[in-house]
Amino acid sequence: MDLDLIVRNGTVVTASDIWTDCDIGIKNGSIVAVARGLPATDGVEILDAEGAYITPGGIDTHVHLSQLYEASVGGLMKTQITNGQIPDLANYTNDTYDTGTRSAVAGGTTTVITFASQLRDDESLVPVLEEYYKLADGQSYCDYAFHMILSNPTKHVLEHDLPMMVEKYGITSVKIYMTYKAFQLRDYQILDVMHAARKLGITTMVHAENADVIDWMTEHLEEQGMTAPYHHGTSRPPIVEAEATNRAIVLSELMDTPILLVHISGGQATRVIHDAKSRLLPVHGETCPQYLFLLAESMKKAGFEGAKCVCSPPIREEAADQDAIWTGLANGTFTTLSSDHAPIKFDHPGGKLLGLSHGGGPQGKFQYIPNGLPGVETRVPLLWSGGVLTGRITPQKFVEVTATNPAKLYGLTNKGTIGPGFDADLTIWYPQETFKPFKLTNEMLHHAIDYTPFEGVEFKNWPRYTLVRGKVVFKEGKVVGDLGYGQYQKRTKSTLAGPRNRFLSEWRPKP
Amino acid sequence: MDLDLIVRNGTVVTASDIWTDCDIGIKNGSIVAVARGLPATDGVEILDAEGAYITPGGIDTHVHLSQLYEASVGGLMKTQITNGQIPDLANYTNDTYDTGTRSAVAGGTTTVITFASQLRDDESLVPVLEEYYKLADGQSYCDYAFHMILSNPTKHVLEHDLPMMVEKYGITSVKIYMTYKAFQLRDYQILDVMHAARKLGITTMVHAENADVIDWMTEHLEEQGMTAPYHHGTSRPPIVEAEATNRAIVLSELMDTPILLVHISGGQATRVIHDAKSRLLPVHGETCPQYLFLLAESMKKAGFEGAKCVCSPPIREEAADQDAIWTGLANGTFTTLSSDHAPIKFDHPGGKLLGLSHGGGPQGKFQYIPNGLPGVETRVPLLWSGGVLTGRITPQKFVEVTATNPAKLYGLTNKGTIGPGFDADLTIWYPQETFKPFKLTNEMLHHAIDYTPFEGVEFKNWPRYTLVRGKVVFKEGKVVGDLGYGQYQKRTKSTLAGPRNRFLSEWRPKP
Amino acid sequence: MDLDLIVRNGTVVTASDIWTDCDIGIKNGSIVAVARGLPATDGVEILDAEGAYITPGGIDTHVHLSQLYEASVGGLMKTQITNGQIPDLANYTNDTYDTGTRSAVAGGTTTVITFASQLRDDESLVPVLEEYYKLADGQSYCDYAFHMILSNPTKHVLEHDLPMMVEKYGITSVKIYMTYKAFQLRDYQILDVMHAARKLGITTMVHAENADVIDWMTEHLEEQGMTAPYHHGTSRPPIVEAEATNRAIVLSELMDTPILLVHISGGQATRVIHDAKSRLLPVHGETCPQYLFLLAESMKKAGFEGAKCVCSPPIREEAADQDAIWTGLANGTFTTLSSDHAPIKFDHPGGKLLGLSHGGGPQGKFQYIPNGLPGVETRVPLLWSGGVLTGRITPQKFVEVTATNPAKLYGLTNKGTIGPGFDADLTIWYPQETFKPFKLTNEMLHHAIDYTPFEGVEFKNWPRYTLVRGKVVFKEGKVVGDLGYGQYQKRTKSTLAGPRNRFLSEWRPKP
Amino acid sequence: MDLDLIVRNGTVVTASDIWTDCDIGIKNGSIVAVARGLPATDGVEILDAEGAYITPGGIDTHVHLSQLYEASVGGLMKTQITNGQIPDLANYTNDTYDTGTRSAVAGGTTTVITFASQLRDDESLVPVLEEYYKLADGQSYCDYAFHMILSNPTKHVLEHDLPMMVEKYGITSVKIYMTYKAFQLRDYQILDVMHAARKLGITTMVHAENADVIDWMTEHLEEQGMTAPYHHGTSRPPIVEAEATNRAIVLSELMDTPILLVHISGGQATRVIHDAKSRLLPVHGETCPQYLFLLAESMKKAGFEGAKCVCSPPIREEAADQDAIWTGLANGTFTTLSSDHAPIKFDHPGGKLLGLSHGGGPQGKFQYIPNGLPGVETRVPLLWSGGVLTGRITPQKFVEVTATNPAKLYGLTNKGTIGPGFDADLTIWYPQETFKPFKLTNEMLHHAIDYTPFEGVEFKNWPRYTLVRGKVVFKEGKVVGDLGYGQYQKRTKSTLAGPRNRFLSEWRPKP
Repeated sequence: MDLDLIVRNGTVVTASDIWTDCDIGIKNGSIVAVARGLPATDGVEILDAEGAYITPGGIDTHVHLSQLYEASVGGLMKTQITNGQIPDLANYTNDTYDTGTRSAVAGGTTTVITFASQLRDDESLVPVLEEYYKLADGQSYCDYAFHMILSNPTKHVLEHDLPMMVEKYGITSVKIYMTYKAFQLRDYQILDVMHAARKLGITTMVHAENADVIDWMTEHLEEQGMTAPYHHGTSRPPIVEAEATNRAIVLSELMDTPILLVHISGGQATRVIHDAKSRLLPVHGETCPQYLFLLAESMKKAGFEGAKCVCSPPIREEAADQDAIWTGLANGTFTTLSSDHAPIKFDHPGGKLLGLSHGGGPQGKFQYIPNGLPGVETRVPLLWSGGVLTGRITPQKFVEVTATNPAKLYGLTNKGTIGPGFDADLTIWYPQETFKPFKLTNEMLHHAIDYTPFEGVEFKNWPRYTLVRGKVVFKEGKVVGDLGYGQYQKRTKSTLAGPRNRFLSEWRPKP
Repeated sequence: MDLDLIVRNGTVVTASDIWTDCDIGIKNGSIVAVARGLPATDGVEILDAEGAYITPGGIDTHVHLSQLYEASVGGLMKTQITNGQIPDLANYTNDTYDTGTRSAVAGGTTTVITFASQLRDDESLVPVLEEYYKLADGQSYCDYAFHMILSNPTKHVLEHDLPMMVEKYGITSVKIYMTYKAFQLRDYQILDVMHAARKLGITTMVHAENADVIDWMTEHLEEQGMTAPYHHGTSRPPIVEAEATNRAIVLSELMDTPILLVHISGGQATRVIHDAKSRLLPVHGETCPQYLFLLAESMKKAGFEGAKCVCSPPIREEAADQDAIWTGLANGTFTTLSSDHAPIKFDHPGGKLLGLSHGGGPQGKFQYIPNGLPGVETRVPLLWSGGVLTGRITPQKFVEVTATNPAKLYGLTNKGTIGPGFDADLTIWYPQETFKPFKLTNEMLHHAIDYTPFEGVEFKNWPRYTLVRGKVVFKEGKVVGDLGYGQYQKRTKSTLAGPRNRFLSEWRPKP
Repeated sequence: MDLDLIVRNGTVVTASDIWTDCDIGIKNGSIVAVARGLPATDGVEILDAEGAYITPGGIDTHVHLSQLYEASVGGLMKTQITNGQIPDLANYTNDTYDTGTRSAVAGGTTTVITFASQLRDDESLVPVLEEYYKLADGQSYCDYAFHMILSNPTKHVLEHDLPMMVEKYGITSVKIYMTYKAFQLRDYQILDVMHAARKLGITTMVHAENADVIDWMTEHLEEQGMTAPYHHGTSRPPIVEAEATNRAIVLSELMDTPILLVHISGGQATRVIHDAKSRLLPVHGETCPQYLFLLAESMKKAGFEGAKCVCSPPIREEAADQDAIWTGLANGTFTTLSSDHAPIKFDHPGGKLLGLSHGGGPQGKFQYIPNGLPGVETRVPLLWSGGVLTGRITPQKFVEVTATNPAKLYGLTNKGTIGPGFDADLTIWYPQETFKPFKLTNEMLHHAIDYTPFEGVEFKNWPRYTLVRGKVVFKEGKVVGDLGYGQYQKRTKSTLAGPRNRFLSEWRPKP
Repeated sequence: MDLDLIVRNGTVVTASDIWTDCDIGIKNGSIVAVARGLPATDGVEILDAEGAYITPGGIDTHVHLSQLYEASVGGLMKTQITNGQIPDLANYTNDTYDTGTRSAVAGGTTTVITFASQLRDDESLVPVLEEYYKLADGQSYCDYAFHMILSNPTKHVLEHDLPMMVEKYGITSVKIYMTYKAFQLRDYQILDVMHAARKLGITTMVHAENADVIDWMTEHLEEQGMTAPYHHGTSRPPIVEAEATNRAIVLSELMDTPILLVHISGGQATRVIHDAKSRLLPVHGETCPQYLFLLAESMKKAGFEGAKCVCSPPIREEAADQDAIWTGLANGTFTTLSSDHAPIKFDHPGGKLLGLSHGGGPQGKFQYIPNGLPGVETRVPLLWSGGVLTGRITPQKFVEVTATNPAKLYGLTNKGTIGPGFDADLTIWYPQETFKPFKLTNEMLHHAIDYTPFEGVEFKNWPRYTLVRGKVVFKEGKVVGDLGYGQYQKRTKSTLAGPRNRFLSEWRPKP
């Protein structure tokens, strides 16, 4: 066989199987063969895995890069912050496509799906798509695609722009928010979005928290002087997430259209999703490493140190919630594990404009802490080291939630597994017996952020090589790929779930 | 003993017990003694029950009288309909306190709780209270009290008017809507109301349906020409009620304050309430005879005949939902059974102003049908005849849900049972062996409405005498009481449930 | 009115109502009137309650007296212990009808239902009935009735003796065991019993623990030297009770016949019963004070002190189980609260014969500790003081589970409530404001047992007077009734639940 | 690459992935490569799949062959039927290893796990193993392995024979029965078996039905003359299976050891397993095509025709049960789909000895109908045609339950998927567009049985080629393999589930 590269002697894992003594033959960026004893022809390059595990390159489907992220938190309109110009992003966010994807490949991730974001005053998706396309173009170390955040789902947007977006850009998923002033949609609008999504066969991602409760609680906590970072969690106990999750599922059951509940943090919401999934509703759950590995005590550190762990939904108080997330990962409640990489420096200049900071803004209140954590680089190693190597999940389950399901759910048809015809996106681990465990410090990471919530966590392995389409882009601690090598991925419809054509009343959507 | 009246020889039922051969001694409108062989002193009046059942007078806690009811359906502000004057009610609604309470006593009901209704543009409760007080004063055959509907819960209303209302008027319950344009509150406002209710120790009644879903479905049904009366049900399948019920319970659990979910119609919502009640949350359910005795097929009658059965939530399609309501009645999910008497003539003049009619307004669409059914007179006999006499519930359960629990839940401390010190409100039935079953026709009823949804239903018994505070007001088919005899009832706090002082996060309401 | 006794000025509680300023008129042992201001005629005796609570006399439906109790535990046949003679009971058990009912009335209990017990080698119920009838006759301070324990349900017993027992003795309940070698029935036999019970309309009580699991665990614990008293609990975790409870309910659902699960101890079984009851199956639960007020740590006391708290099912480890029992009491899962009074002296002579003792027999192993606790005297005061006065349950709920439901469930038609025509069985409490809390010591109790598991518990009230059929039998700490005053009660069928005539397959029992 | 055979141009399916245009390279019976465009070397054989689906050869893990099957049903001991000699199997059963495995390969199955069966009077497993080994040796068309049925789990058997069996024979699963007189174990014995299984790391299969209920119901049905075949179902409604399933799971949770519930038929048991699995208990479910494709009406055919569909648990009455089984297959409740091939001719000679026949024995009663259906040949095509091609399940799910999970669960480490290093066991389907649907008749099948319960079912595809270890054994309707080609498979421990080391009390099994 005419090959460019043979990865020799791996223990290859797919979402169902493990092949030992396995070689992978690669040509033109694609996997051509998986075999035992693949003959090497002249000029073929050889990479020896030395018996180590090889997993499909990680696909991180929830990554915020170069996004006017804080704007949303602050509830401002784009025009208010940019004066109509494309903003100097350095001032507003801290990971661009450059630094974010550099960080991704250093953690074994080969594809990210980031967000193009329609702000409330965007009447059309066209400039949004153009802007984000431009921001990423030539700026990525790994492959990438976009979800579209909808915060102004007008008839024009849904009936005109959305079909264009699917057709021209291959964006087959939209994200909506049930909270955050600048993004939040009412249930009526959510039905509009789902109705349009159903027609196009695309998937709706939902950030499910009850905004009214959060606002009410935040105000009343402030009245009582409860403004420390960890009261971010006090303002939204697990039931707040569970309520909105239930509501989102009800809406999707009415509309008979697939949804994914993003970043699920608590046991109650997990059970709501599990029940829906068990009934075969096209309902999916996503969780993140922070809910598997951290507890709310991390928000209680002195001063505003705790602000480093403020995200929404919050990291939970109870070990029982954390256990429920692990259980949900193992029992199939969670279709995907993503990072929700939301990279904002602890100490960053741009927030001042908006009154946001990890110090809680000028008034030192949790509601002015930007929500979100960096995590695109740690996601894959955390789950391998803390999940597979501790026996909590199998290697196959790891592959399923970090790569295979993400590819299936979002229509990355050439990605997500190891097999003939698939892109040669690979994560090659160190042979376990040779690896010396270490404790993570932020300096080891490749993002542009000045902290990691996982500082001090011990890792028992880490990706040794990352290959994107057959090319080594990360090798033994160093990013060796080229900026701009990453390609934009047009996506197809989900192969994981679609409408069931079962309805709760006589009404049917028009085809 | 010095008595005014002895009711002789009854089979007296309380919510727990049955006493045979029992006499009831009455003085000054109160029960003084229940006894066997009560000696008759000179001048005492005797009423022979002939061995028949005697139950506490019915308390119907969900009755709409003299209310600008349709305004709410139509979403209009009061000023739009009244030009600032007190409207000529005859033009807008069809049962006043006069006809409504006449109908009540003819059906064994001795106390009604009706609604004073703050409309959206009412900035204060003071005129609302005064207006409704005036409407009812001297106009009632039976005792009565008010709930307050809140549709504009401003800080002033909650902090100033509400405490006054509790103190001065003895109104210890408020009702809020999660649907209907003119009344609907957002979750944030619901929390405000619950917060205030908790402080005052009063109960919040919630009409739980997801308004956004209903609006969305209604519009899309109309687009497809699905406008017949029974599509009212299509627009709001049971899950729409269950979702809002779940949400209301979540809000009440957060606020640790008692709620009652009004007029529950479907099995899913019933289960949600049952789960909450089983966990001892202060959550109560109410259901109505229409959900026990009718199915959606009654909305499918030719033309707009089906409009007679249009109410919200709708009467359900499935026998399984009806069974679930019966089960919920028997297993304690439902604290009370009310009529939701919402009396609007099939053919009435007032609706024209608002574009509402049982013909679906000028355009013949279900969304312009006024929601609601008359039922204050049939509630008690339906449950006795169709529930007790068929063996589906015990006589004690009948008393519990029609009288005792209503009194306890809403703080009618002198009412709701038969025992020393309680008001002599009694329903005396016919001795079963002498009663000849009959089929109901609307002519037999005493309301001002031109139809009953229970036309043709067979009754195996009916109240023979109704006594309000020791006075016979209904006797063998005839209303014999006096208009104006009914007295306004100041109420205390609920004795049935209160806060548990368990919270879901560190936040606590200020005492 | 011609009365023997007027109890003046009580706060009378029934299972649904509270009547203040209430007098109770009594004639010939029956309640004739409840009234305000009952006129006193000549010669009538007056007892002033001074405003205190008056509750119906407690009915304890689970009391072991004069029973060859240990025989069952040891698995011996009657002939083995008695050599064919009626045994000298002093050698085998420690509370007889004399001391047991003396203890009952001293704790506000006016009726006990004890057990006549068919042992495995009893081919007929006739001598069993005669023997127990004789044991109790003239030996009781309070009224009493029998359940029949069936451990050899032959065709003859079921078809011949059982109908006779119902007819002649008015015994309308049988008890069966799913554990204990000497009593345990197989599922097949349980169906036989339920089949016969259904035909006769009587109720089946079930001790539900999986015997095989217990035996297996006990042997394997012993192998590992885990023989201390508290490993009695280790041998039968809550799931062992839940499994058998589920199985018993399945059998009763198949047979469509009412059952009561006795002495439920854990949260899992509670939930199983709750689910069944919510579906309206004729399934009832009973719990006992030891599961409400004690935790397994009480079994961990030094040496064999812990043996004082050994009962089956065991007192549980987890506060969560205890909470679940309280929740089940409040939400209606438990129809009755009984003592399961199983009185065996800590240091008693008779056990030696059987190798049983609180020291774990000669070998000092938990399996040789007699199972059971004394509690007939503390049941009512514990629930009042620790349940009502702490606000965990209402006074009405207290009455319901200690008196009203027991009477209804077991067909004591003249007992269980306060009202005209019912027996004047009353518990009169101390006016709360005058009562000085005290800590219980065993010396204060009136049983023949040398310990109480509730030693040291503080009581905030205690019955001041106990009246059995209008006669004061206990007064301010002293038993003042006469031995032999207590009468045997023939019972009718349960009025609380019966067959529903719903079956799980085409099979129907013959009428 | 040096290959023996290349299967060209397939659409290869694993439990997670689909590879199009895929070649499979085979050497020495093993898969060496999966690749696109695998180069053909001299002498290599080529088999063109023409683009059709290729799935891993079916593994049927529940097959009864050459078994004294009826003996068990009749409750006889082996010695009673054989007079101590090896019986002439032709007289007792109808599919031997010869005819049974011929039928298997003709239906796309490449490995069967059959049962070696300890009868009640077998004191040792040694002769049982030798006998079954001899029966199968050289008599199989496909690969095969054994489960061991334990019906006399003595200390000797568990401590001595069982470890030998695992070690020497590689049998890593035992099967026990909770019903059938000749096999049924008590719960105590089940714990013994699970205890031993845990120590050895093997899996326990459980036939879960409550024997006592079945016996009781059967007798009482006969009393009422309800003896027709379909009353087999009347005697054991779904709850009977659910009860035993719950009990088995409780026992396994106590022992912390993996179990598989065989042939689950009803919705209630499915939910019990689903709950356990969701909690990550090592609990697995198995179902069979008869529960997916048939309903109880098939037992109601005239005369004893219905007897063809008598199996245990029975095929269910309600479509809701069938739906629940489909749902359980899709949502992961069922780990495997097996045939429970239990091949007994409708008209067979051997049954006379035992009084068993499809005519209900000499007395024509359902209890004398041999339980079980033939199905080893139809299992794979039924699920593909009726499950995958109808869209109810994905091709990957099909592979998971028919091949991959069976191999993982039972430790067939070289089988169950398609990938380097695995046995070349393949099922190659017809290209869909060329296949002409047909209706099945029993004549088309290759078993020795005179009927199929699936007579008349339409198939939309069927295996075109079956390959066992690289050799075509079935080709376009004809069995072309050699008797005796099939090899015995020693198995390893399950890789799918093991103990979790979580216990319900302080007791721990000794390591």
